[in-house]
Amino acid sequence: MRETPHTAVRYSLRSDRRSQNPADMGTIRREGSSMENPQRLYVQTHPEKLNAQWIVGFVDGEGCFYVGINPHPEMTCQFQVLPEFTVVQHRRDVQLLHALKKFFGCGVVRSNHGDRMAYRVRGLNHLSERIVPFFEQHPLKSKKRVDFARFRKILRLISQGKHLNLQGIEEIRAIASTMNTGSVR
Amino acid sequence: MRETPHTAVRYSLRSDRRSQNPADMGTIRREGSSMENPQRLYVQTHPEKLNAQWIVGFVDGEGCFYVGINPHPEMTCQFQVLPEFTVVQHRRDVQLLHALKKFFGCGVVRSNHGDRMAYRVRGLNHLSERIVPFFEQHPLKSKKRVDFARFRKILRLISQGKHLNLQGIEEIRAIASTMNTGSVR
Repeated sequence: MRETPHTAVRYSLRSDRRSQNPADMGTIRREGSSMENPQRLYVQTHPEKLNAQWIVGFVDGEGCFYVGINPHPEMTCQFQVLPEFTVVQHRRDVQLLHALKKFFGCGVVRSNHGDRMAYRVRGLNHLSERIVPFFEQHPLKSKKRVDFARFRKILRLISQGKHLNLQGIEEIRAIASTMNTGSVR
Repeated sequence: MRETPHTAVRYSLRSDRRSQNPADMGTIRREGSSMENPQRLYVQTHPEKLNAQWIVGFVDGEGCFYVGINPHPEMTCQFQVLPEFTVVQHRRDVQLLHALKKFFGCGVVRSNHGDRMAYRVRGLNHLSERIVPFFEQHPLKSKKRVDFARFRKILRLISQGKHLNLQGIEEIRAIASTMNTGSVR
């Protein structure tokens, strides 16, 4: 069996790319080094190009379709509905989150908890026009596809303005309460 | 946007398939029902066909390459080296583990902890001839590829018989101790 050429090459390429940054001149940077500037961990100049089926597999494992319903006194119906698609990873793999962001052409990569980072899409247009069509064309294989179907239904209710009155909020809440429960209901 | 045809169709197909089982005649089965026979949860007659890139994405999220080194007084060198490739899932998605088993043509699907199931490959031949070549041809995109490279190196040491003496065991232990640590070392 041969040695892992892709791993070795990828690591040396990353080192080379970093050392070409004028700000790094004369310094040696290594992942995990205490000398590392934490700000730079989140910089990703050339995100990897992703394959659609890889994304489906990764999201089957790590993705989450979530709808938050938060009290919001300034809104007519007192509540704000916040749908979001999230993928969380340890920061060592933040480049995958940047690659997702580039693939979908929307969303943000931010700190989550501790060593974890999150790719997050919240905008209604981005969710409806980019995230949902992708997973319609490339169906999830895990039971997460049930959460996705409910998520899509809530997006449709929002686009119909149902989130602007209490009756609609209750309808949305009823659907959202069955999502991400770890069981199939 | 359209309704989720794939989800709806898949669920009705599953119900139909189950109701055609003579043992189920006259009964109604639903996932999550308290009437459900827990034994049947693990039965998978037609595992879904998987795409290689989907598997890579899923394993980037959920897979683990692990090498156990356990005391074993009956062996000449007192230790047993146990490499394994594992993918753990909630039992609601056990069909994906069966699909992995079918794809690789080896391994077992067993209970793990609580509601979780595991697809596990332990045999040296199966690991070396089926699992390793697959991930050589379809590289992981996460830092898990570093664990994979170390795993493969240990398999090579075992095939050279290094696990049969204490010096080799120490060499293997040194590599294994750097795996699955959540950091890149």
